[in-house]
Amino acid sequence: MKKPADNNYPINELSRERWSPRAFADKPVETRHAASLLEAARWSPSAINEQPWRFILGIKGDSSWEKLFDTLIGWNKQWADRAPLLLMVVGKENYSSNGKPNNFHAYDCGQAMAHITLEATNLGLFTHQMGGFSVEKATELFQIPDGYKPLAVMAIGHYGDPDTLPEEMKERELASRERKELKELIFSGKFGEPSPLF
Amino acid sequence: MKKPADNNYPINELSRERWSPRAFADKPVETRHAASLLEAARWSPSAINEQPWRFILGIKGDSSWEKLFDTLIGWNKQWADRAPLLLMVVGKENYSSNGKPNNFHAYDCGQAMAHITLEATNLGLFTHQMGGFSVEKATELFQIPDGYKPLAVMAIGHYGDPDTLPEEMKERELASRERKELKELIFSGKFGEPSPLF
Repeated sequence: MKKPADNNYPINELSRERWSPRAFADKPVETRHAASLLEAARWSPSAINEQPWRFILGIKGDSSWEKLFDTLIGWNKQWADRAPLLLMVVGKENYSSNGKPNNFHAYDCGQAMAHITLEATNLGLFTHQMGGFSVEKATELFQIPDGYKPLAVMAIGHYGDPDTLPEEMKERELASRERKELKELIFSGKFGEPSPLF
Repeated sequence: MKKPADNNYPINELSRERWSPRAFADKPVETRHAASLLEAARWSPSAINEQPWRFILGIKGDSSWEKLFDTLIGWNKQWADRAPLLLMVVGKENYSSNGKPNNFHAYDCGQAMAHITLEATNLGLFTHQMGGFSVEKATELFQIPDGYKPLAVMAIGHYGDPDTLPEEMKERELASRERKELKELIFSGKFGEPSPLF
């Protein structure tokens, strides 16, 4: 299913076509495609090239998938059970060089995950990131040490059938994508003052 | 100048070709291109579609550019003075719906900025994100209110001539792009245990 952005200015096809469905198909992701997704993340930029991203990859049927699924809140469990891949991104909170706090670890992990979403679109795959999971449970189940923080879980797979979703989710699935206008987001001179360009 | 990723698995051309130079050309960015960059950010995903990103756009010659430049640390001032656009991303720290802390604001702002980097590549432009700037100065100069946090500044422009850079920067500019191996980043079973796939 396609839900291209209703964009006012031209943007690249990957950004335009990417969206976050819940209706995943019960169909595996090829290993070579999983590799390309993570490879795209690998080449993402980061503050002083720290690369603060670590990933826990669960493939449906393996214990990591089960544990990742177990960390999700109920709402997400309702739909993510079909996703063939679950991927948790874990941020390294301190710089490797000097142990000082890396204030950019979450920001940079977000960038890496964005590269995954767009590579997924490139491969005809879909992603849906979730903040609704238990950090505590993840930390316990995967023995995540101090200094590393679980940030998000991503479902990855092929598109399925929206009719498999509960009614409330199906409505959202079929709704158009909504965004604020650029004039609400882009300021110049001072914060809150719209840029004259938009 | 091209510095494609030395990737082990195929990735899309935008992720492959994107890199962060310092040698910008003294040449403006067309307004329609600036619009496309911000439009790509606009369609980025975010937790409960909060869209916590706000941007301050400086165009060389205007007061916002001067103020953004003024927030940079000395090292960045040495090269960013040629960039025709400076863009600060400011994260909204609380959810608009209920005022509660949005733990994903930095992560989601990172995603939006990643979309800008890739749209820039799509347009033949280059970006370089900087963590080296003064949050305090930015807050003061742009009167950024409580609840909003300056996260990063991005230089945007056309590629220039590496010979214009100081020697130390020129070396970095010409060096190949380095990344950790996937086996250092992708775990399964427990944190730190390499995935058998990589």
